[in-house]
Amino acid sequence: MPRPTHTENSLLARIEKRFRSSAEKHSNANKFSEISNQVSLGIGDDAALFHPTPGCETILTCDWFLERSHFLLHRHPADSVGWKCLARAISDIAAMGGVPRCFLMSLALPATSTGAWLTEFLGGLRRAANFFDCPLAGGDTTRRNEILINITVVGGVKRGRALRRDGANVGDVIFVSGRLGGAARGLQLLRKRHGIADRNDPQLREHLYPQPRLALAQWLAEKRLATSAMDLSDGLSSDLPRLCAASHVGARIDAAKLPTMNLGASHRNHNATENRAYDDKSLDLALNGGDDYELLFTVPEKSAVKIPSKFEGLPLQPIGEITRTRKILLVGAGRKPDELKPGGWDPFR
Amino acid sequence: MPRPTHTENSLLARIEKRFRSSAEKHSNANKFSEISNQVSLGIGDDAALFHPTPGCETILTCDWFLERSHFLLHRHPADSVGWKCLARAISDIAAMGGVPRCFLMSLALPATSTGAWLTEFLGGLRRAANFFDCPLAGGDTTRRNEILINITVVGGVKRGRALRRDGANVGDVIFVSGRLGGAARGLQLLRKRHGIADRNDPQLREHLYPQPRLALAQWLAEKRLATSAMDLSDGLSSDLPRLCAASHVGARIDAAKLPTMNLGASHRNHNATENRAYDDKSLDLALNGGDDYELLFTVPEKSAVKIPSKFEGLPLQPIGEITRTRKILLVGAGRKPDELKPGGWDPFR
Repeated sequence: MPRPTHTENSLLARIEKRFRSSAEKHSNANKFSEISNQVSLGIGDDAALFHPTPGCETILTCDWFLERSHFLLHRHPADSVGWKCLARAISDIAAMGGVPRCFLMSLALPATSTGAWLTEFLGGLRRAANFFDCPLAGGDTTRRNEILINITVVGGVKRGRALRRDGANVGDVIFVSGRLGGAARGLQLLRKRHGIADRNDPQLREHLYPQPRLALAQWLAEKRLATSAMDLSDGLSSDLPRLCAASHVGARIDAAKLPTMNLGASHRNHNATENRAYDDKSLDLALNGGDDYELLFTVPEKSAVKIPSKFEGLPLQPIGEITRTRKILLVGAGRKPDELKPGGWDPFR
Repeated sequence: MPRPTHTENSLLARIEKRFRSSAEKHSNANKFSEISNQVSLGIGDDAALFHPTPGCETILTCDWFLERSHFLLHRHPADSVGWKCLARAISDIAAMGGVPRCFLMSLALPATSTGAWLTEFLGGLRRAANFFDCPLAGGDTTRRNEILINITVVGGVKRGRALRRDGANVGDVIFVSGRLGGAARGLQLLRKRHGIADRNDPQLREHLYPQPRLALAQWLAEKRLATSAMDLSDGLSSDLPRLCAASHVGARIDAAKLPTMNLGASHRNHNATENRAYDDKSLDLALNGGDDYELLFTVPEKSAVKIPSKFEGLPLQPIGEITRTRKILLVGAGRKPDELKPGGWDPFR
């Protein structure tokens, strides 16, 4: 085993230096000054100090991002690991209709990863922190034989405006943002290849660099349009039952309306059997793929007309409705109605 | 490998059930009602909602607690793992003079630990949560070949009253609470034995069930007595240099004044060489042992008389003073003055 090149002090100093210059950039730009002012004491003390905004509730979330479980050291670019570990934690703030304010990072590293890997990782992390206006406020570091990351994000939302899972009502229209299955398709492609993936590969973009739907969720919360919302992290077939369970309702989803990858689109001169196989695969990825971080939300039937087909360029698609019957039914696309079983990501299954 | 007995949903439900009844106990007791009211939406949504107290800053801290690094599966009782992972994270809130408000837990478990181990772990965790008035607000769970725990604690402190590391001034008297070295001594004893340690063994108490010094730190913050403070998690020889570096000062510590374990006390009829060996060992544990979670703090010389020799039964000991020279010197106890080098816990050394 190589000799460690860092003490905990020097590792902390390196992270602090990288992010101090990011915080300075924040405070130079007017847009960010309010946010960076919210963290009065960052890295280097026993804990961080955060000034909550008056009239706001504080949103708290934490997320694992572990080597082998959530990323592969020899497949995923360290830059994308840095971006994604923060982006997916921020997606939980988006799911509440909130604004990210700051984050804490717990990092456990082997001595072999304190060099080039760490530099590239911190680069992606810092770019995400700047992009989402979410400065690093503190954390914990230790040494470990594998890379372990845990991210806590602190956000804010106007009192009483948070989007929750438990407010869906019978008759509400169910919407999803964006396209489902792209991240899982990216993972499939990445697994088939050798070596570290190309971080600029457009087919891997959704998988390597997910985009939490902050602006959409904040708009829904501000306009009080959604009765419930959550982010699609584990796949629609696992996540929709959670929203329905919290709201004590069921749902009927139309398979033909799901915004799938449409993998067969470039193969339509194939025969019907092959086309059907492409469609089934697209549908499976959309239902069970997970890792999309798109927004799932419900809107009362009479307000559904207020939901545009695109929000700032992001497609919004009605995919079904909330039902009194406590089942999750999948209908349409020439299939007989069937109960949708959780097939998405579950680390314990 | 045994079949997993839990899905993520059922594991979450089990944790939630265990802690929901704890939250109910909270809300029945007047003393805790304000605190449990602060968390409006706990486990089960995308994120937790927390109401900050007006006029208070929010304190944020996170801490690793990992199998093999911080505890041994076949030595440490699961109950003590539950207590200690929360207590040591709360110690960082104490170090800021704050009050713990709620916590998030990220937990990664092998399928083999979802049975009896988890039940006992949650028992110790819940007892700590009740004892420190710090309810579980949310978290993340996943499956892993080893047990990984990360705890985020959210606390509160009156605006401008937080105890920081960077306020020590030349001439300030340096104090420590309690006795140093007991936790490290406990770990030595535990390592020598076989099987799971007896959680009631008084020699292991400091190691298995640390007590963050919340009341003392809150009193120091309220009375504005301390110019700086931190908790002793990695050992005085590692932690004091961090406080001094943050404050741009040095320190002189009197070895004879350190509140050591005094391991030779029951052996004083031995010869002088043996007594000296016991004294050296006691001193080494006090300086380098770590894991004590006692409070290290500095007080202006003229205010030092206001620090009692005991606070609510906890001994407070002046051990030296802050110096202009940026070195950390150890003097006294018949030794020639020597620079104190960090010898405490550092995972990267």
